[in-house]
Amino acid sequence: MASKNYYDVTEWHVGNPYTDIGEVLNSIIADIKSRQKDTDHNEEGKPGAVIYIPSGDYHLRTQVLIDISYLKIQGSGHGFVSSSIRFNVPQDQWKDLHELWPGGSRILVDLKPGEEEYTGAAFLVKREGDPRISSVEFENFCIDGLHFVDDGSGDPENTYLNGKTGIYIASAQDSFRITGMGIIYLEHGVTTYNSDALSIHDNFIAECGNCVELREAGQASKITDNLMGAGYRGYSIYAQNFGGLLVASNNIFPRGTSSVHFSGVLRSSITGNRFHSFYPGMLVFENNCTENLVSSNHFLRDHEPWPPMQGYDNGLEDDYGLLRIEGTNNSIIANHISETIDTKYLKPEGCVPSIIHLVSGTGNYIASNHIVATTQNTQEKAAGEDSCFDAQVGALLSVSELQELPVIAVLVEKESVKNVVLDTGRDSQIRMDRSKNVCRGIPELM
Amino acid sequence: MASKNYYDVTEWHVGNPYTDIGEVLNSIIADIKSRQKDTDHNEEGKPGAVIYIPSGDYHLRTQVLIDISYLKIQGSGHGFVSSSIRFNVPQDQWKDLHELWPGGSRILVDLKPGEEEYTGAAFLVKREGDPRISSVEFENFCIDGLHFVDDGSGDPENTYLNGKTGIYIASAQDSFRITGMGIIYLEHGVTTYNSDALSIHDNFIAECGNCVELREAGQASKITDNLMGAGYRGYSIYAQNFGGLLVASNNIFPRGTSSVHFSGVLRSSITGNRFHSFYPGMLVFENNCTENLVSSNHFLRDHEPWPPMQGYDNGLEDDYGLLRIEGTNNSIIANHISETIDTKYLKPEGCVPSIIHLVSGTGNYIASNHIVATTQNTQEKAAGEDSCFDAQVGALLSVSELQELPVIAVLVEKESVKNVVLDTGRDSQIRMDRSKNVCRGIPELM
Amino acid sequence: MASKNYYDVTEWHVGNPYTDIGEVLNSIIADIKSRQKDTDHNEEGKPGAVIYIPSGDYHLRTQVLIDISYLKIQGSGHGFVSSSIRFNVPQDQWKDLHELWPGGSRILVDLKPGEEEYTGAAFLVKREGDPRISSVEFENFCIDGLHFVDDGSGDPENTYLNGKTGIYIASAQDSFRITGMGIIYLEHGVTTYNSDALSIHDNFIAECGNCVELREAGQASKITDNLMGAGYRGYSIYAQNFGGLLVASNNIFPRGTSSVHFSGVLRSSITGNRFHSFYPGMLVFENNCTENLVSSNHFLRDHEPWPPMQGYDNGLEDDYGLLRIEGTNNSIIANHISETIDTKYLKPEGCVPSIIHLVSGTGNYIASNHIVATTQNTQEKAAGEDSCFDAQVGALLSVSELQELPVIAVLVEKESVKNVVLDTGRDSQIRMDRSKNVCRGIPELM
Repeated sequence: MASKNYYDVTEWHVGNPYTDIGEVLNSIIADIKSRQKDTDHNEEGKPGAVIYIPSGDYHLRTQVLIDISYLKIQGSGHGFVSSSIRFNVPQDQWKDLHELWPGGSRILVDLKPGEEEYTGAAFLVKREGDPRISSVEFENFCIDGLHFVDDGSGDPENTYLNGKTGIYIASAQDSFRITGMGIIYLEHGVTTYNSDALSIHDNFIAECGNCVELREAGQASKITDNLMGAGYRGYSIYAQNFGGLLVASNNIFPRGTSSVHFSGVLRSSITGNRFHSFYPGMLVFENNCTENLVSSNHFLRDHEPWPPMQGYDNGLEDDYGLLRIEGTNNSIIANHISETIDTKYLKPEGCVPSIIHLVSGTGNYIASNHIVATTQNTQEKAAGEDSCFDAQVGALLSVSELQELPVIAVLVEKESVKNVVLDTGRDSQIRMDRSKNVCRGIPELM
Repeated sequence: MASKNYYDVTEWHVGNPYTDIGEVLNSIIADIKSRQKDTDHNEEGKPGAVIYIPSGDYHLRTQVLIDISYLKIQGSGHGFVSSSIRFNVPQDQWKDLHELWPGGSRILVDLKPGEEEYTGAAFLVKREGDPRISSVEFENFCIDGLHFVDDGSGDPENTYLNGKTGIYIASAQDSFRITGMGIIYLEHGVTTYNSDALSIHDNFIAECGNCVELREAGQASKITDNLMGAGYRGYSIYAQNFGGLLVASNNIFPRGTSSVHFSGVLRSSITGNRFHSFYPGMLVFENNCTENLVSSNHFLRDHEPWPPMQGYDNGLEDDYGLLRIEGTNNSIIANHISETIDTKYLKPEGCVPSIIHLVSGTGNYIASNHIVATTQNTQEKAAGEDSCFDAQVGALLSVSELQELPVIAVLVEKESVKNVVLDTGRDSQIRMDRSKNVCRGIPELM
Repeated sequence: MASKNYYDVTEWHVGNPYTDIGEVLNSIIADIKSRQKDTDHNEEGKPGAVIYIPSGDYHLRTQVLIDISYLKIQGSGHGFVSSSIRFNVPQDQWKDLHELWPGGSRILVDLKPGEEEYTGAAFLVKREGDPRISSVEFENFCIDGLHFVDDGSGDPENTYLNGKTGIYIASAQDSFRITGMGIIYLEHGVTTYNSDALSIHDNFIAECGNCVELREAGQASKITDNLMGAGYRGYSIYAQNFGGLLVASNNIFPRGTSSVHFSGVLRSSITGNRFHSFYPGMLVFENNCTENLVSSNHFLRDHEPWPPMQGYDNGLEDDYGLLRIEGTNNSIIANHISETIDTKYLKPEGCVPSIIHLVSGTGNYIASNHIVATTQNTQEKAAGEDSCFDAQVGALLSVSELQELPVIAVLVEKESVKNVVLDTGRDSQIRMDRSKNVCRGIPELM
């Protein structure tokens, strides 16, 4: 009577999980399909199975294709360690390191990506027909892309490029769960298409080119309680043509090109997050994002403090906007926005940075946001003087000699009208056509 | 030395989990009780046990009675698929579907409910005496009510009625956890009484008549990070006589009669949620709800786009209020509220809908909320023209031809006084006795 | 081929987990280290392991030392029961109780703490060198300190003192996870130093002297979705020299000396929480906390209703402030703050309590907060008249005879200038130098 629906990759009779876990997983999926054929017998169906991956290092040389609902793949450890720090430590010091590689239940993505993006995915979810594939669960294991590759800069491990993806969900799906995962050193962490009721919750997705991309369209999903950090070319969170997305309680650290990028997203909510970026364009709404809420978030923009990455950025200049909105009827309420940067780093030189930039669209409501813009003269540190942690924490905590930095709190382009700006910046910090937009600046000191 | 406190329903020697998992679970609970009798020996007591349910289909024909603390029942998959979509697909197409039924670790609730509601519960938690039963955990399995039943309409699978409940906690309890579950096609998903420190976190509770009901009284609990959707007769989240409830980070989609319904609830908080409803009365405070916070939520009200359900609604008219408050000293701050509907669907005909409706009570504080009300002429689609997903996403994303819809942003009945309304609607959109309430509308365009 | 990296404490050949699980865990860790020595072979390394603790009572007589990355210790139950209630029930009634002790996967902390605090920790994490120890996971078990000890008051079980700690992370660490735990009756629940990307999520940490303390420095971490309650001497959440901490969706109940205490914390966010305290000083920012966001929280301060604890408090008086800020450029936006207390309990006698108290620092932004201050004449209840639950819920729900309590909504000391206070209290409730601070009170009734 013992269940056949519990598998352990280290106890499966086909393949060797340590040399190619992909072959093992595909074999197990075939076994599930061979046993579960009948969709309706006494109201029983095809309940799927769980596949357990114990802690260990498992090379994946064959892409895993998932085309059955209810499959759960579960490990015992998200296994993150900073490969970015390690690759920037001189190689002659590696022998003294406690560990070099991530761990936990660790999938080493040993694929050679082809032309098409999905070919570089460790896990490809793809199934046509009805119903949409449903309730697949990825839980608490590590997907490690191992290395980034050179892009001609001669600095391969810092390129965030390798053509690999952790989880690529090609088909419309319903009620998927990605929880407790560690996802690292992949050009794309999680990429999905046409998601419905997707939950990406409590994961650690970092040192990836892009962390989470919800493409094509989708609805009623949540990205909550994750720790994330992308690369300077890539998205932390990207969503396209989505309705009803909830992005909440995430702590998104640098250095993605943006923290959240919405394209044609409607009636969604970004709330209660902590965002930290090294570049302008932290929150980008493009292609007529409409009726979204951005509230109770903490935004921090400062300058890259870690020497190995100081040569890279997202290419945007400081007049782009920290929060840049192309869209209508959005709400930006009760946020705290800190920009702190030595003026020598502003681009173009002498730029007065824009914080909230309404580029096009109408009827946006901007209220009760606190913008804190500061500057100081920073001392250059010689490379290697601080550990990465010290450099980062030191940068976060250095406030003692700050002075006020002039910024445009809210910049409303002439294409954007009927906006309402309340208690966000002083009147002198707001640039708009006051005959076409409503403005009540923070009262001045008497 | 191997622990006796780990059980697997498929390896228990009494009963057959596939034909009656209820009998198996009750037998296991009896075994735990027979082994754990001593409450105090070397500071050891009765630690309970974990019961594992592998992926599979398990008929439950006998109610499970839980009366021991610390019991954990854990599965390997929440197993949701939309039974609502499937039952609305013509039966002759079912043979082409990949699956018909939910999956994962799936309990098929095969009970015949009696007169009293608790008799239809798959899991009944009941224990008198002290201390209150504590720390029972339900994790990551599926409870499926299978079918709804006819109510005379001739449309049984769309009635949301079957007298069944997933988890019914009849007794006062402390520190229970319901996590990662899939709960579907039950008239009541989770019903509790006198809850203290309850956590309902990261579940998928949908296509149930009612999703979560916290009855009688309770305190210090949290309902967070769930995906939920109820039926047009039932509650998504209901709480009664509660103090200190936190409802946060939920994505609550249609089609419950309301998104959140509080009765006599105090000093609780609804924050950071995304709510989507097809009817008025999304947030209902009745019986003198007091000192609650409603902040940073996204509310969307539009019209049912899916033909099989277009004949049903919650019976309320558009002057009821989208957020309807009977109570004192509540705070409604920093929310985004979208109402978008073709005027032909408003009831009564020609109604100017109320958005925030203060019915009775005093001293409510309504500030910095953005209300977006739009309308357009919609085209009727023939039934079956779109997939359910396409219809839903299409409705969410259609904004291109919207016009402003006249609404009453805030309606204060004469019974309700000393309220404060700031920056929520323009003066012309606020109806109140301005001699008894404070009002500062959004400034008008110059 | 079956994995060696899955351990079960009840199946290990060294030691007896029931009499000393510490010895067993240390032995297992030694085994992992003996097998995993090579940091780099075919890009494989030292992936760590998972150690499973089934439900049961396990005395810990030897401290567990963790010095390997990726170790996961996982149980099957957080096992909370209120020892505080039980120890305040007369001993002759204990025989009628269903259980006396917590349960689940329960570690009984049977250490004799020495002089230094770390000696009383059940789990000590300590490792020098590089990289920082990473991705250790503690999941879903119970750490029980068993008893508090006398401090001369003759009321030992109510002292919240015993020199014990649940998890003590002495070394800088990266990406640790503490999830689903039950932590009870320890002087310190979780204490960490120099944390980076730490996640403390969905735990029950209560009846501890202090719940969570993040000491020395740290960054980019999150404390989310926990239920917590400390003792009158101790912290619920404490953080020191932190940048980028996210404290969200927690339900923090009494009776800690504070709900959140920040010392030298910057650019962090406290949002979407529910806080309940019996004393002034719920939110304390000291040592120049800067650029933090406090938004969308519900604060409730009332008076201890449970007789066994009515003799204790945190020693602060009501002019201290409920939210007390020493710092610059912080944002306090969209919060609901309820203070309800019989005037006879105010200290000093006749005090007009301060709600938001800006003590020093500049440029703080206080906007759109709703303060509700009430009072009533309470009846003294004889000890034992109500159960603890009834007393607590009764106190939360008693609103029928409330009257307004005069308070100072915002008190700005002369040392603190350039603050902005908007729509938070009426002008008559705000005390500040209006030549040095900006103030716009809630408009008065006409």
